[in-house]
Amino acid sequence: MSHEEDTLPRIIVEPIVANALREDLGTAGDITSRTVLPAGLTARAVIRAREQAVVSGMEVAATAFRLTDPGLEIAIHITDGHRCRPGDVLLEVAGSAHAILAAERVALNFAGRMSGIATLTAAFVEKVAGTRARITCTRKTTPGLRALEKLAVRHGGGFNHRHSLADAILIKDNHIAAAGGIRPVLESVKARVSHMVAVEIEVDSLEQLEEVLEVGGATAVLLDNMPPGALREAVRMVAGRMVTEASGNVTLETVAEIAATGVDYISSGRLTHSAPTVDLGLDM
Amino acid sequence: MSHEEDTLPRIIVEPIVANALREDLGTAGDITSRTVLPAGLTARAVIRAREQAVVSGMEVAATAFRLTDPGLEIAIHITDGHRCRPGDVLLEVAGSAHAILAAERVALNFAGRMSGIATLTAAFVEKVAGTRARITCTRKTTPGLRALEKLAVRHGGGFNHRHSLADAILIKDNHIAAAGGIRPVLESVKARVSHMVAVEIEVDSLEQLEEVLEVGGATAVLLDNMPPGALREAVRMVAGRMVTEASGNVTLETVAEIAATGVDYISSGRLTHSAPTVDLGLDM
Amino acid sequence: MSHEEDTLPRIIVEPIVANALREDLGTAGDITSRTVLPAGLTARAVIRAREQAVVSGMEVAATAFRLTDPGLEIAIHITDGHRCRPGDVLLEVAGSAHAILAAERVALNFAGRMSGIATLTAAFVEKVAGTRARITCTRKTTPGLRALEKLAVRHGGGFNHRHSLADAILIKDNHIAAAGGIRPVLESVKARVSHMVAVEIEVDSLEQLEEVLEVGGATAVLLDNMPPGALREAVRMVAGRMVTEASGNVTLETVAEIAATGVDYISSGRLTHSAPTVDLGLDM
Amino acid sequence: MSHEEDTLPRIIVEPIVANALREDLGTAGDITSRTVLPAGLTARAVIRAREQAVVSGMEVAATAFRLTDPGLEIAIHITDGHRCRPGDVLLEVAGSAHAILAAERVALNFAGRMSGIATLTAAFVEKVAGTRARITCTRKTTPGLRALEKLAVRHGGGFNHRHSLADAILIKDNHIAAAGGIRPVLESVKARVSHMVAVEIEVDSLEQLEEVLEVGGATAVLLDNMPPGALREAVRMVAGRMVTEASGNVTLETVAEIAATGVDYISSGRLTHSAPTVDLGLDM
Amino acid sequence: MSHEEDTLPRIIVEPIVANALREDLGTAGDITSRTVLPAGLTARAVIRAREQAVVSGMEVAATAFRLTDPGLEIAIHITDGHRCRPGDVLLEVAGSAHAILAAERVALNFAGRMSGIATLTAAFVEKVAGTRARITCTRKTTPGLRALEKLAVRHGGGFNHRHSLADAILIKDNHIAAAGGIRPVLESVKARVSHMVAVEIEVDSLEQLEEVLEVGGATAVLLDNMPPGALREAVRMVAGRMVTEASGNVTLETVAEIAATGVDYISSGRLTHSAPTVDLGLDM
Amino acid sequence: MSHEEDTLPRIIVEPIVANALREDLGTAGDITSRTVLPAGLTARAVIRAREQAVVSGMEVAATAFRLTDPGLEIAIHITDGHRCRPGDVLLEVAGSAHAILAAERVALNFAGRMSGIATLTAAFVEKVAGTRARITCTRKTTPGLRALEKLAVRHGGGFNHRHSLADAILIKDNHIAAAGGIRPVLESVKARVSHMVAVEIEVDSLEQLEEVLEVGGATAVLLDNMPPGALREAVRMVAGRMVTEASGNVTLETVAEIAATGVDYISSGRLTHSAPTVDLGLDM
Repeated sequence: MSHEEDTLPRIIVEPIVANALREDLGTAGDITSRTVLPAGLTARAVIRAREQAVVSGMEVAATAFRLTDPGLEIAIHITDGHRCRPGDVLLEVAGSAHAILAAERVALNFAGRMSGIATLTAAFVEKVAGTRARITCTRKTTPGLRALEKLAVRHGGGFNHRHSLADAILIKDNHIAAAGGIRPVLESVKARVSHMVAVEIEVDSLEQLEEVLEVGGATAVLLDNMPPGALREAVRMVAGRMVTEASGNVTLETVAEIAATGVDYISSGRLTHSAPTVDLGLDM
Repeated sequence: MSHEEDTLPRIIVEPIVANALREDLGTAGDITSRTVLPAGLTARAVIRAREQAVVSGMEVAATAFRLTDPGLEIAIHITDGHRCRPGDVLLEVAGSAHAILAAERVALNFAGRMSGIATLTAAFVEKVAGTRARITCTRKTTPGLRALEKLAVRHGGGFNHRHSLADAILIKDNHIAAAGGIRPVLESVKARVSHMVAVEIEVDSLEQLEEVLEVGGATAVLLDNMPPGALREAVRMVAGRMVTEASGNVTLETVAEIAATGVDYISSGRLTHSAPTVDLGLDM
Repeated sequence: MSHEEDTLPRIIVEPIVANALREDLGTAGDITSRTVLPAGLTARAVIRAREQAVVSGMEVAATAFRLTDPGLEIAIHITDGHRCRPGDVLLEVAGSAHAILAAERVALNFAGRMSGIATLTAAFVEKVAGTRARITCTRKTTPGLRALEKLAVRHGGGFNHRHSLADAILIKDNHIAAAGGIRPVLESVKARVSHMVAVEIEVDSLEQLEEVLEVGGATAVLLDNMPPGALREAVRMVAGRMVTEASGNVTLETVAEIAATGVDYISSGRLTHSAPTVDLGLDM
Repeated sequence: MSHEEDTLPRIIVEPIVANALREDLGTAGDITSRTVLPAGLTARAVIRAREQAVVSGMEVAATAFRLTDPGLEIAIHITDGHRCRPGDVLLEVAGSAHAILAAERVALNFAGRMSGIATLTAAFVEKVAGTRARITCTRKTTPGLRALEKLAVRHGGGFNHRHSLADAILIKDNHIAAAGGIRPVLESVKARVSHMVAVEIEVDSLEQLEEVLEVGGATAVLLDNMPPGALREAVRMVAGRMVTEASGNVTLETVAEIAATGVDYISSGRLTHSAPTVDLGLDM
Repeated sequence: MSHEEDTLPRIIVEPIVANALREDLGTAGDITSRTVLPAGLTARAVIRAREQAVVSGMEVAATAFRLTDPGLEIAIHITDGHRCRPGDVLLEVAGSAHAILAAERVALNFAGRMSGIATLTAAFVEKVAGTRARITCTRKTTPGLRALEKLAVRHGGGFNHRHSLADAILIKDNHIAAAGGIRPVLESVKARVSHMVAVEIEVDSLEQLEEVLEVGGATAVLLDNMPPGALREAVRMVAGRMVTEASGNVTLETVAEIAATGVDYISSGRLTHSAPTVDLGLDM
Repeated sequence: MSHEEDTLPRIIVEPIVANALREDLGTAGDITSRTVLPAGLTARAVIRAREQAVVSGMEVAATAFRLTDPGLEIAIHITDGHRCRPGDVLLEVAGSAHAILAAERVALNFAGRMSGIATLTAAFVEKVAGTRARITCTRKTTPGLRALEKLAVRHGGGFNHRHSLADAILIKDNHIAAAGGIRPVLESVKARVSHMVAVEIEVDSLEQLEEVLEVGGATAVLLDNMPPGALREAVRMVAGRMVTEASGNVTLETVAEIAATGVDYISSGRLTHSAPTVDLGLDM
């Protein structure tokens, strides 16, 4: 389903999780557990899936428990990128009941969201099986969580588009309009951009594509909102000289038809901005 | 639709937005605009709704533009908490084209998500019109964005449940089990909790509710996953002595029937964790 | 004396202590120990009370040592919330002499201040023994240390009032004046505030109290600067329908008389803003 | 009374004040004002002294208002380092009522504490008038607020001792014991410390002082817990070759007698760790 | 000389500059100016070049002054990326003397370092004039200052290589050894990497280059430590199918000969890790 | 060569190193290793010197590895402050190959820079052997790295000047001009500065020096840009009453002649702002 052992460095993940824990603990901490739980109470708990999914966020959930109390014992049963069925135990944690309950909601909020993204991505990936098309996300991610959401896309078998505005060049219609056309834009790119930067340019028509192919300087072309016929013609025109990406109106219903046109990538913000959360629960 | 002028202090909002801008700008900034846009180019742009919605996140979007370039002129046309129709201009920004494009995606990511939450909340609120029931969110929010998502719920006409574990007491089944029953839990609360803390206790059955009423010490009761008949009976038993809240299986299809039972609050994590993003675009 | 095992999550405490250590170490660190201590020197030291007190801040002091050097061995002899006598050893630490001396002042500054608050709180609590009155703090805490100072109040047997402006509603005279009276204020509250928020309103006279009782919508009333006779009458008027809190001119001399009026809570900023530091010393 | 225009750079003060504002605003902000105040309400308010004091913290209070809302108009009437009488207006602020009330408590918490320190310092300074003795603080400050508390000491007419462990060398009894005596300690200092570092050494007896004078290498001597007779003899022995500082048992009752011995500095942790807060109020 | 108006967003630059100001101001601020300067003294000062250079860091220096005191008037006379001669005024600042002196050293430290990098880069660029070779930096930058140092390289007319490990793929000898050869490494890349990521692979020999050309999957090849003859042969073999980059033993003496081989890029860590600081001074 | 075991507290070093790691890992982490390395691969690597040097930064490099993966085993073979020859192994690290490669560049960037400073400092120290002169650095350090660079100077056998503007008084020509002469400046110092602050004043001529000696109040004098003859005369005039420091035009060629004049300290910004990086490599 996914790249094996695809994880992020702890030095990236821990500040995000610590921030979420502090958000949920306020300045006073978990006043309910502090008030009603017997001192020193220990417990064993599991995160269980309540529906079928592609799992993502188990490492992040484990980080939430570990940052709350380094003494908790944590075992991940289904690792990120693998499928689970309803009732499956994904993660087990044992130790201070107070700590487990303090981290519970944060752990579940991360894991439910990430699993939702991985699951939706996997559904798109399945729809395009047998074609050359790869599914890729966009920058339409949750502010502050991009690294985790892009990871979840990979756990679902998808590919990542740019991580930030600093990663790669993506020339959109606004840029072309502001710079006075495709040619000056691509000439600027050729004059100023190094070999370690991928360059993609968005086109809305086959005429624009023709000019892009003529001027050169881009490694990929984003075919935005084109009907399948035009996509097929675009792929034919490009003839392998650039990577082709289709975007716009990409749904589980339409994606197979788009993939059949022969494009290399199909991108959708939906993977990250509108994936429904997977229902996970913590049972003591 | 919503509380007028419901906003958050800038000292809370700005760090969240600045964090998102840094995430999107990487360490190198927007290399596309830097490469292709003419120096000193100015522009005028609008955020336009592409579908009907309850608007939320305009103040946050404005903050994204302002933090990127304090020299941008920004005008909000439809303020948070008001309805928009497809094509409506929500916000207008003028100044450096480079700055507008650098902030665009972050502004839209916040506003699309917040408007999505406000819109879904408003849909729930409409369904319960004419009953005493109020719609409320939960702690199932996006890590790092709770303050903004709870604000969006208010913009949609909903109410906020706890902001954090430090706000109020909510005694769940795990607490009751760990502490040895409803009575010891509520006795602990009475002994240790001050008058400035609201206390709610979750019950799964009318028997539990009866014990809660007998022991006292809670200001609200969470009736979890009860069918409408049981809810109606619970409301009758409580007879105004506590606030009643229903949760579990709350959807746009079921919420009216739940509201008709006479409960005071209906809570759903769906408002925040599964609201589809509203489609907004930036037009130059 | 206090709630057993009342502590704060490490994820809240550690940043506060780390900030204090960095403040005291500057950018160059402890230049005295670096200059004069033999390399690799180890030592054993104890924090000793030089006066009678209720101990608070031992967990925080231990955090200061642990953050400075995770290799230090630390044992707390008198845990937070318990009484000590002059000469008692509160905490013992062994390991790098350099590390112990680097953390010493920060550990003592926290523990001396917190123990001062716990001790003063306990003195107030003793004065009201035998009445129903509980002693509670206010928001008049040291900027940046509220969580720790509120914890110290609990260690002294007191209760906490609001932790922040976001926790609960407290309507003061300025609000009433600005909003045009008690009735519109309480109507706003009823229309906008959820069941998870406690609501208290300040009154200066029995006439105001009467109006509060008539309008409803508050869970507690703050009787500000009323003489004992008025307090007693107020308690009679409220007759258990709201929680009563007295504030203003609360000292160790006056508190017993105030408590005798039958109020539920007595609040004083003095607990946190003017508690004298407890004299603690580190002996090698 | 104090150095004129003694202030700290905004880049130091603002993060401390912002941290305090966030602590007080939680993640949800001031829910009381949000709920009960009419939208757009403006007000004028003053900070008024309720007792006689030396003022400190007005710049910091102004920063609290400004960070909450840059649109507030703020005028300081009695600047830091000057005396006020009961009823005096110290600061005036006008603008959004919501913003003024949101910043009120933080502004007062800083100003009350700082004025308390300045006032107590000034009382010590008055007691030693006519002697050569200068009053100085220690590192026994509130964690996180050292810069502000040292500033308040200066506003009261006192002098600052070390700001951190990195500023200057202060050799205490533990160092001498660990390093094997006064001579090796001072030899280490001479070998390793540059000319830009002041060096002070603590002695408990005249015998130790004699050894210090013989070995050299220190610019100041801390005469710890010596009775007046011994202090006078120490001053005679030093004969201006080093700066002399007395510490231990320094109170408003004892300080004049200590000053009369001819020492150059008298230090006390009391100035910062046990100064009672000055009573300030905000009137709308 | 350089890309016009090549700057970084303030949201990236300001935290770096603020951190440097806090490092230099300690917790106590500029005690010299506070002690000796008359209150309210204003001044006019200029940053002047004491040697010929390519200027970089003027925007950053201006940020240092602005963050110290927003009231300072600042004018940049020679903008980043332009040449200056000894004695030229680069920047002028007027306002509080205290603020100017507090920011002076930080402003000069940034500008001297950045101008040093721009100047050295420009010297390399000049040496390769008339060839197709572009000069590019590496990741051998000062920790914490990469964004600014990469900007200085651009101001000197150079190009940037990767900004971070997350930007692009660069496969080095260690990767090839660990993964079992060039083929499996490139197959992994083809299977897992999206079109928005540039891929470069390091080779030490023409045999390795041949295999790289055969397997495909990389957009650029890094020819490490090859003599000019081998470089020329490599360029011939590649025949425009990949971008070529030479590295190793690149100095002002050797760079022209390397460029003459026909490679597209020449990279050197020297540009950033060993550029001598340009001598700049602040004159009041 | 250097003070033994001269290190900085981890609480100072770790944030600097973590910041550098995050800078190099971006938000997406090391995409090369993630893509091409086999899962779970372990390795052993060494940091090896490629030239002769005085080592510094090994503790910092070890911190980079430890923060990336606490499971790495790290052994330092040549500790900070000791000499190495080409080919010497300085540090050995074993464990996750992915983690070693992720931290490699940051570890080397710190260690190369710090060793460069230590090595250049040691060269200056050698040149003045047999004189009383000590070599000292300035505040011309890399923004954000001052603590580490000052440590490297000590590792090279040098001494540190001020760590920040808050450490000590250094009165420069601008201060003297602004305050109206040497006498008012030194009178201000005597009136306002405590005994824990060293005071140095810069003079450009023997006339100025004479006035400084007459007025008193400074502990050291900075003889700026004076020729050897004037320095010798200045040393004679001072006659041990103040510490003497020479600055200006200090190079490896001139330093011995300056030292021969009898000055106590010789300072140069060159130690930190222009030390060439030492060539270190990581071999797997």
